[in-house]
Amino acid sequence: MPALITLLTDFGLADNYTAEVKGVLLSRAPGVTVVDVSHDVPPGNVRVGQYLLSRTWNRFPAGTVHLVVVDPGVGTARRALAAQAGGHYFVAPDNGLLTVLPEDVRFVALPVLRDASPTFHARDVFAPAAARLARGDRFEDLGSPVADAVSLRPPAPRVDGKAVVGEVIFADRFGNLISNIPVELVKRGARIRVGGTEVGALRRTFADVSPGTPVAYVGSGGTVEVAVRDGSAVRLLAVSVGAEIRA
Amino acid sequence: MPALITLLTDFGLADNYTAEVKGVLLSRAPGVTVVDVSHDVPPGNVRVGQYLLSRTWNRFPAGTVHLVVVDPGVGTARRALAAQAGGHYFVAPDNGLLTVLPEDVRFVALPVLRDASPTFHARDVFAPAAARLARGDRFEDLGSPVADAVSLRPPAPRVDGKAVVGEVIFADRFGNLISNIPVELVKRGARIRVGGTEVGALRRTFADVSPGTPVAYVGSGGTVEVAVRDGSAVRLLAVSVGAEIRA
Amino acid sequence: MPALITLLTDFGLADNYTAEVKGVLLSRAPGVTVVDVSHDVPPGNVRVGQYLLSRTWNRFPAGTVHLVVVDPGVGTARRALAAQAGGHYFVAPDNGLLTVLPEDVRFVALPVLRDASPTFHARDVFAPAAARLARGDRFEDLGSPVADAVSLRPPAPRVDGKAVVGEVIFADRFGNLISNIPVELVKRGARIRVGGTEVGALRRTFADVSPGTPVAYVGSGGTVEVAVRDGSAVRLLAVSVGAEIRA
Repeated sequence: MPALITLLTDFGLADNYTAEVKGVLLSRAPGVTVVDVSHDVPPGNVRVGQYLLSRTWNRFPAGTVHLVVVDPGVGTARRALAAQAGGHYFVAPDNGLLTVLPEDVRFVALPVLRDASPTFHARDVFAPAAARLARGDRFEDLGSPVADAVSLRPPAPRVDGKAVVGEVIFADRFGNLISNIPVELVKRGARIRVGGTEVGALRRTFADVSPGTPVAYVGSGGTVEVAVRDGSAVRLLAVSVGAEIRA
Repeated sequence: MPALITLLTDFGLADNYTAEVKGVLLSRAPGVTVVDVSHDVPPGNVRVGQYLLSRTWNRFPAGTVHLVVVDPGVGTARRALAAQAGGHYFVAPDNGLLTVLPEDVRFVALPVLRDASPTFHARDVFAPAAARLARGDRFEDLGSPVADAVSLRPPAPRVDGKAVVGEVIFADRFGNLISNIPVELVKRGARIRVGGTEVGALRRTFADVSPGTPVAYVGSGGTVEVAVRDGSAVRLLAVSVGAEIRA
Repeated sequence: MPALITLLTDFGLADNYTAEVKGVLLSRAPGVTVVDVSHDVPPGNVRVGQYLLSRTWNRFPAGTVHLVVVDPGVGTARRALAAQAGGHYFVAPDNGLLTVLPEDVRFVALPVLRDASPTFHARDVFAPAAARLARGDRFEDLGSPVADAVSLRPPAPRVDGKAVVGEVIFADRFGNLISNIPVELVKRGARIRVGGTEVGALRRTFADVSPGTPVAYVGSGGTVEVAVRDGSAVRLLAVSVGAEIRA
């Protein structure tokens, strides 16, 4: 079974950057399978990178190497990290992207060689490290242990009287609003409210309401979501990331 | 030779959905090659999904598994299908996406397990079935036979006196208009008319007219197309999908 | 180690064209690894295709086959080429895309069969040739030698008194401006000026200035670039491809 490396960046697919990274991976880890997670993280948006990582990494087989680069501090003194957690490997800048990993996480700091481009560590620092992991190099050999990786906790829901109060943490291509309220916190029959609109109790799926109507349901990530059937909740409700959502 | 799975969805490439599907495929069918056909089907547009499927599936080798998910009815009672046709395999919701397959098509209904997310059957129902086919499981073992799959016939051209009347069924990135009129139906010397504009007889290729000029030709799918050399027919002729085209 | 084919086109990822090419490659060179470089070259823009090729091809391992199709003259008498240079292979229309290859380049003209679609040589001419190279067919067997391939030299910087004068040759997703001035030509302490704005001497990386401020630095391709930290130089400086840049 060939080694797997996933890519999650804010480089887009139009320019040369993602392809340069793939060239390095395929040169240094011949035969590796490279899988794009997303390259459309809004430029520099660590929160979105973190969300997409949290939703995808554990769908891949154990041993997968996840290269995650949303890196507004590239070329500064911020550290370059490799991590091991949950049986997977990760390579990323030390800016909180990896805060969503399981508690067994261990970090090492990658060396940054003098000839690395100060604006393209993905190619010159992170990809070489990912290729080494994909080739079976020992994690411990990649760098020196780090005990104080930067922490960027995702926003957590809170309890307010009888309600749970969370927020919209992602809006997807369909205009669906994904919240940080896990279904386990939602009381039976609770009515969902987002951005001033009450959208009723949780339903099973979009088609449980009529077209053009908002609907709340348990999303595929296990948290409360709000959509508009055959439409966009972002547009119809004029709501986006950061909005309060109550259940 | 490794097994092949193609993906055709309306999930886009920015969010986590396509990557989650790939993670499931690579976890359940280790070593499989996953190829993106398109993830930019307009949300819920079964017609466009059907068109892209019809243009691409038989370019891949026999035995390829095609996972096709444009699924506005996800989570409802609509069936989940696997199909075998023309030596290929297909997995899709039962909404007419697969109506374009050859006449030897056979269908089975896939079981939908209780723990499948009602809004993400691509990950929890279709991908696991595609992985089983890629691993060599027998098609017949995937579900019970279905004899009445939903039918959604693509629009057919008709004869009107001496002319053939069809319609624009797709507009591509270049603004080229693709019709449903097969070249075999076009009389020698017939002049092509679309959306009120006469664009002349069929030429060989774009460069047979001067820049900025409309041109009709036989497209790479074997039907009449209209383009504007070094420009966009969609914009210059103010025409799009559904417009009448006469030959 | 499986053979590698990279793809660089202006086909986009939404339509059927890129997938049809991949189907042909995987049918004719079973087991080949296909890597997307970019499909978002602006329609017909040979200059951008050439730039992206120049930045990416030599990151891949020796023996890689690069299929490059930006082809406004498809179907005309323009030749179809295969090339060998720097230990890599290339397949492209004869319109100057390949002018950026090393000096050891050799060309052959590919035969265009009668049944090739006059608007889709990528599928019917270039992909079959790329597949043959990936399978190990001899380069010389693909066609007859060509000594006069079309030449399209990228714009070169010139010296103007004490200054070097170049131009912006690419603007990336982040709004960064990439010039054609190699760092070796920049005098110590020289101040960079682009589109009427002086942006100071070369710094190491974005974060060496405060957010919202323009910064000049040596880009990852070895030439002078201008960016705006956490912003877009294209927007803030109202500058784009073709603008003069002085160092």
